[in-house]
Amino acid sequence: MKIEAVDLFYLSMPKVLDIGDGSQDALLVRIRAGDYEGWGECEASPLTSIASFVAPMSHSACKPVKYSVEGKNINDIADIYNISKLVYENSFDLLQADHMLSGIDIALWDLLGKIKQATVYSLLGYKKAYPKLPYASQLFGNTPEETFLKAKKSFDMGFKAVKFGWGPFGKGTLEEDVAQLRAAREGLGKDIHLMIDAGTVWIDNNTDASKRLNALKEINAYCLEEPFINGELAAYKQLSTASPLCPLAAGEGCHNYAQAAAMIEYAGLRFIQIDTGRIGGITAAKRVADLAKAKGVTFINHTFTSHLALSASLQPYAGIKDDLICEYPVESQQLALDITKEKILPDSNGMIHVPDLPGLGMTVDTEKLRPYLVDVEINVNGNNIYKTTAL
Amino acid sequence: MKIEAVDLFYLSMPKVLDIGDGSQDALLVRIRAGDYEGWGECEASPLTSIASFVAPMSHSACKPVKYSVEGKNINDIADIYNISKLVYENSFDLLQADHMLSGIDIALWDLLGKIKQATVYSLLGYKKAYPKLPYASQLFGNTPEETFLKAKKSFDMGFKAVKFGWGPFGKGTLEEDVAQLRAAREGLGKDIHLMIDAGTVWIDNNTDASKRLNALKEINAYCLEEPFINGELAAYKQLSTASPLCPLAAGEGCHNYAQAAAMIEYAGLRFIQIDTGRIGGITAAKRVADLAKAKGVTFINHTFTSHLALSASLQPYAGIKDDLICEYPVESQQLALDITKEKILPDSNGMIHVPDLPGLGMTVDTEKLRPYLVDVEINVNGNNIYKTTAL
Repeated sequence: MKIEAVDLFYLSMPKVLDIGDGSQDALLVRIRAGDYEGWGECEASPLTSIASFVAPMSHSACKPVKYSVEGKNINDIADIYNISKLVYENSFDLLQADHMLSGIDIALWDLLGKIKQATVYSLLGYKKAYPKLPYASQLFGNTPEETFLKAKKSFDMGFKAVKFGWGPFGKGTLEEDVAQLRAAREGLGKDIHLMIDAGTVWIDNNTDASKRLNALKEINAYCLEEPFINGELAAYKQLSTASPLCPLAAGEGCHNYAQAAAMIEYAGLRFIQIDTGRIGGITAAKRVADLAKAKGVTFINHTFTSHLALSASLQPYAGIKDDLICEYPVESQQLALDITKEKILPDSNGMIHVPDLPGLGMTVDTEKLRPYLVDVEINVNGNNIYKTTAL
Repeated sequence: MKIEAVDLFYLSMPKVLDIGDGSQDALLVRIRAGDYEGWGECEASPLTSIASFVAPMSHSACKPVKYSVEGKNINDIADIYNISKLVYENSFDLLQADHMLSGIDIALWDLLGKIKQATVYSLLGYKKAYPKLPYASQLFGNTPEETFLKAKKSFDMGFKAVKFGWGPFGKGTLEEDVAQLRAAREGLGKDIHLMIDAGTVWIDNNTDASKRLNALKEINAYCLEEPFINGELAAYKQLSTASPLCPLAAGEGCHNYAQAAAMIEYAGLRFIQIDTGRIGGITAAKRVADLAKAKGVTFINHTFTSHLALSASLQPYAGIKDDLICEYPVESQQLALDITKEKILPDSNGMIHVPDLPGLGMTVDTEKLRPYLVDVEINVNGNNIYKTTAL
């Protein structure tokens, strides 16, 4: 079977706010072959990723992403690996290509699952998908009082694990951060896992990060996520052995396997967090999950958007029983909720389950998405090289 | 003084060929403030970088690059650092932003140099710019015979150092590669430094790379460049200690300081090669040069395009006397040659000199460039968000 069409759909809320909420827009990828179609989603800046898909060639290693996808075979897993390999070879000087590839690779796994009537995790070699413990992932409130109320709400909803991140954290004084951390713990009570996401706020500054370690210990933080920017290996390593110890989590910014491998190998992480929508898709994420397992580092998905992205991000480690925790978006915009007809909801034990249906097991609700569709037109020297397809 | 205008110019040869020659198109950046203007150039996929400059915001950490540049102050070095910092903060989920920032940062240094009537290298803190030994950087011929003739030509032109890379190298049999290597050495004679660029062809496969070590020793290779893809730290480290030893060079793919720091720290490199047009501009490149010096690793520019890019890429290590070698494009397309009125040419001793004029010391030849200008128009929901400015 050949790939007959690759269509990109840029969706957006009517108004995008200047807040750390990545669910305000989305780039969906639909790939069609024969009677089948697969869907994928990639992270951030839809217009830039669309440009990477259609941009005129700059040279042999800077071709548009579409060059390595359109018209290619899709009959077996080897075909998906081949397309990844082609994108890396043909577009490796095109920085944005890794994000674009992510959505394409996810759509290809969904498509192949539908062709073979198999779940993606089984195609990846897992005999079984284990339940995951979702943590409610959300932004810090603007004040400790707001954070307290958000924490209380998550507790009341029955979440066993909660993450707070971004917002004002790390941007004001140490005392303000301590107040935020205490408010989160107070709202949750002592038995809930509490994870803290610094959103790279300290860049590479170990002194600023280290000052928070006492408070993180006081609130019994499960982990500290992204104190530094992605790839600052030495800063991570140093903080990982600082006192009092706090387990570190990072990796969402990795846009290829080699970067994640370096974080696992050199950064002293306890948790590697992979965004399937950024790292090059399910193919690259599965390689990272395998490496993490071999190295004793726990794999966690990074997902802050739709349930399509959530299903995609769970597949790469669905079969690893001990990697129990998963990021679970609880503050998504309506757009993200409207993307799929099905939702992945916690069961009565508070656990979530990877869909046991072909592909990613999700149906994209094209009708509901139409009002969100952003019309893009790109002309180069008077020739139209991209125009949004009808949804 | 405030930044009043940032204009992007996508230039291209009439026909872009499917060869490893990055000089077939270019993205120039012009920044104006008061009566002054500065110029920069960034690597690869102009359309994608333009999209990153104007794309609608996705969330607080995925804003278009222009958000952090337009209207900002430009009076002093601190203003340039501030703009870099803002781009990292405001666009860190926008992968392509690092390439776009590179051209902007270069233009800002050129602009500030013109405002202060100072060379960029002096603004960077260097008292003096030392002459550099240029190596003629070119592609392998399609056959050993072609490579031999190219090598002979470089010798006749008086180059003391030559690099061959890409083309068929690493893509065929070991014997074919050995024949290419011998042809290059035979064409140059025994006294010329000969560098070999594998163009990441072995991805992370040490076995394939190691098989070439004997031949590299036989031809007395000065270094082996990019056997693996950027960031494959473990593969590099392993090859760096394999027998027979061959000094390794890499780093051109780094798109931020942290990645280059990791390559210096963990990859066992003898040479770190930085493309100022990719790593985030002169600001990031200078940080890498400082680190390389401290760690005993030799800094080399990566430049395969214009003399504007060449001047920009020399500034960050102009004042480091011992880092003698520099990459020098000798096969550029006419477009790349037409970008600047001035050229940086070898003197009678075969050495080149960083221009001793304000900024980058180059004049962009706007008139000559007009025929190359690519007209780009991007419309989002019926609104024009980008249209090429007249040159």
